[in-house]
Amino acid sequence: MAKGITKRSIDYSRWYLDVIDAADLAEHSSVKGCMVIKPNGYALWENIQAQLDRMFKETGHVNAYFPLFIPESYLKKEAEHVEGFAPECAVVTHAGGKKLEEPLVIRPTSETIIWSTYKKWIQSYRDLPILINQWANVVRWEMRTRLFLRTTEFLWQEGHTAHATREEAVEETLRMLDVYRQFAEEYLAAPVYIGVKSDQEKFAGAVNTYCIEAMMQDKKALQAGTSHFLGQNFAKAFDVTFQDENSKLDYVWATSWGLSTRVIGALIMTHSDDNGLVVPPRLAPVEVVVIPIWKTEEDIEKLKNRINELTENWKGQLKFKVDDRDQYRPGYKFNEWEKRGVPVRIEMGPRDLENNQVVLVRRDTGEKTSVSQDGLVDRIKNLLEQIQSDMYNRAKDFRDANTFPEDDFENLKKRIEDPGGFFRVHWCGSPECENKFQDSSKATIRVIPVDGKKESGKCIVCGQPSEQRVLVAKSY
Amino acid sequence: MAKGITKRSIDYSRWYLDVIDAADLAEHSSVKGCMVIKPNGYALWENIQAQLDRMFKETGHVNAYFPLFIPESYLKKEAEHVEGFAPECAVVTHAGGKKLEEPLVIRPTSETIIWSTYKKWIQSYRDLPILINQWANVVRWEMRTRLFLRTTEFLWQEGHTAHATREEAVEETLRMLDVYRQFAEEYLAAPVYIGVKSDQEKFAGAVNTYCIEAMMQDKKALQAGTSHFLGQNFAKAFDVTFQDENSKLDYVWATSWGLSTRVIGALIMTHSDDNGLVVPPRLAPVEVVVIPIWKTEEDIEKLKNRINELTENWKGQLKFKVDDRDQYRPGYKFNEWEKRGVPVRIEMGPRDLENNQVVLVRRDTGEKTSVSQDGLVDRIKNLLEQIQSDMYNRAKDFRDANTFPEDDFENLKKRIEDPGGFFRVHWCGSPECENKFQDSSKATIRVIPVDGKKESGKCIVCGQPSEQRVLVAKSY
Repeated sequence: MAKGITKRSIDYSRWYLDVIDAADLAEHSSVKGCMVIKPNGYALWENIQAQLDRMFKETGHVNAYFPLFIPESYLKKEAEHVEGFAPECAVVTHAGGKKLEEPLVIRPTSETIIWSTYKKWIQSYRDLPILINQWANVVRWEMRTRLFLRTTEFLWQEGHTAHATREEAVEETLRMLDVYRQFAEEYLAAPVYIGVKSDQEKFAGAVNTYCIEAMMQDKKALQAGTSHFLGQNFAKAFDVTFQDENSKLDYVWATSWGLSTRVIGALIMTHSDDNGLVVPPRLAPVEVVVIPIWKTEEDIEKLKNRINELTENWKGQLKFKVDDRDQYRPGYKFNEWEKRGVPVRIEMGPRDLENNQVVLVRRDTGEKTSVSQDGLVDRIKNLLEQIQSDMYNRAKDFRDANTFPEDDFENLKKRIEDPGGFFRVHWCGSPECENKFQDSSKATIRVIPVDGKKESGKCIVCGQPSEQRVLVAKSY
Repeated sequence: MAKGITKRSIDYSRWYLDVIDAADLAEHSSVKGCMVIKPNGYALWENIQAQLDRMFKETGHVNAYFPLFIPESYLKKEAEHVEGFAPECAVVTHAGGKKLEEPLVIRPTSETIIWSTYKKWIQSYRDLPILINQWANVVRWEMRTRLFLRTTEFLWQEGHTAHATREEAVEETLRMLDVYRQFAEEYLAAPVYIGVKSDQEKFAGAVNTYCIEAMMQDKKALQAGTSHFLGQNFAKAFDVTFQDENSKLDYVWATSWGLSTRVIGALIMTHSDDNGLVVPPRLAPVEVVVIPIWKTEEDIEKLKNRINELTENWKGQLKFKVDDRDQYRPGYKFNEWEKRGVPVRIEMGPRDLENNQVVLVRRDTGEKTSVSQDGLVDRIKNLLEQIQSDMYNRAKDFRDANTFPEDDFENLKKRIEDPGGFFRVHWCGSPECENKFQDSSKATIRVIPVDGKKESGKCIVCGQPSEQRVLVAKSY
């Protein structure tokens, strides 16, 4: 166990905060509920942004920027939307030394300011689709906050698209859900269940909310990204109509989809261990750290020279650091880079030098291997890909081993407490049964799968007929 | 003259807004003073960000993120700072349905929230330097706004560094000033004068403000980036001290430096013409547009096939679009891409096809050349670099031709009105003389050059001795 990091088995919540602290990712600011994202944490966000931004552009989206401020009256135009968000809003009442005529809300999400703008942009089917994404900060006034998982201000991207037909908008909603799934699996190395939320859990103003749900190591669920089919709700609220090819007037169809700095919390809780952070190689700001180990002054020079030679052609191929600081012992350095989650450590001592080899140490498993210095770059690249896929597979095995069918309500309540996990249960679809079991089990319906697999059964609460199982778990 | 764009000679301000509108870069939002940055405008900002971010990282900086909100009491800790910024602040008084105990200011700049955080991070000289940059939105409540040049909310980067010595902080201030100069010259293709601001014009809370000043086509100055030496002002305000190598306690030295979406205004006003936007190739979201010109159905197929063949290996080498839309005539397309400022247009008709050639048209000069289709990629790349350097040279020639020495106050006042320009005048250094001539000429001291060139003379206002000339102009 690393110094300063509480074991997961002792206190999981404490462990989470200790890992963040040890890896120097973020800290609470003096402004209640807001965090400071420190350079190590922000570097993760930059890598997440780079991959998602590429995926958004490959699917035809462009970026734009809309105002931080939303006139209070705009928020009120969509009834469910204001009901959902008004309690969480931060409000600017004064500016430039004067009281404002109309208070301005800091965006908790941008549907209203964006659809008030789309009204100006859309007249005809020729103006559609609009496929826009925005990288921005948003503010939701939260009572209980936790670094990355829930903070008053957070960073995210929000896509807002406008379409001529319902079909096209639904297709877009599912396309972006799939982009999130792919990102989670291929970059976060986090397997996710996908599906649609119950009416109770959906986004305020949406017709349907789709999401990706990941399992953390404490077997709780974390919603890592959402994609909303908004129907014509916001078009109606802002009177956004278009003429179709037959000159018929109709309201525009909408989607929105978002993923936030919260996924850094998911990354931490999916992979890290009692020694600190473990970062999937494809999102690692530093992939490899090289640490020379010496006893004599003579060794130092030789080692440094050889490391310089070795790493000379690594630039542009690998993200690496050489840690040849004099004032720290190797053990201290090992620990430091371990806490920061760097996927591969390379140790090189005088004997390795003689034997033309280095020691490769995997962060995820701790496995050590002596390998030749010849062809090292390719060996490291392969190892990084191996680590990436091993991390995904371990997380998937863990999740699968902790996802159970359950048909008995009393059993469900017990098993949700101990041993915990995701439970696949039959549900009749009524809000009453949903409430009953949320109240009694502290678990919620995470997703209603959309894979089309039907299975007849009886609602775990009321015994009425059910056509498919839904996924139930405690969640963040 | 392009349809819908007012000529510069008729109304320069109107022309500026028309160019933005014609290129679809941005528009006013329904929130007073805030703008919507549309996809074409945001793509410019993304390219600006990419280059600057690379330059910041190459000079050792890392990114981080600090809260949007600043407790009102923090802002008040540095006397000059609060005096400068308080009148422009937007204030959150209510959040989560309740009145806040202490109002929160939306950051107009982040020195105070960042230095309240650095206090926790800095104890020893070993914790220094801190070299952090932040990409963020900021809010300054402005009375008169103008797209990109002055908006209530704008996007920018702000660097905030902490150092053990005055020398190191001054060095950093000048290093970042030089990064801005280099960015302006090599990417914006905008020559800039560099220097220090007078006390009256400096950043509220700085010891010295350095800046880059560019000349727009109407001969007015635009401050495009600033780098501040903050001395120990913020360290003292937030009590940030460190132990040096001899265990002596001292306050930490600081710099901050920022560049905003305002530079997009500089880009527009440096290069664009009566036909619309002209974008320097190195910042162009689209470098080349290919437009086939056909009369018969048979031509279309042949042209499209040849263009597909030609552009097949362009991906990753050139940012290009092929505009083969059926519903628009070539003239319409030429005009559209011209308004958007795409540096190079390629026209290809049936005769070009027969002769194995294309027509290259430069956006900056309108020059047309028929060239062979062989080796086209390299030819285009060379042409883009040629355009980039020609644009810089034209802007530099224009600026140099409109920068004059002037020793007579009455003459200065006349010449600043007509013909306008930058004037190099002697100034004694007193605020009284600075005020006198600002009041009577509506021009300000833009920079006091820091090139070290001394020249004895007499203050243009009071006749007292002066050691060097300062640069005077009307400004945005």
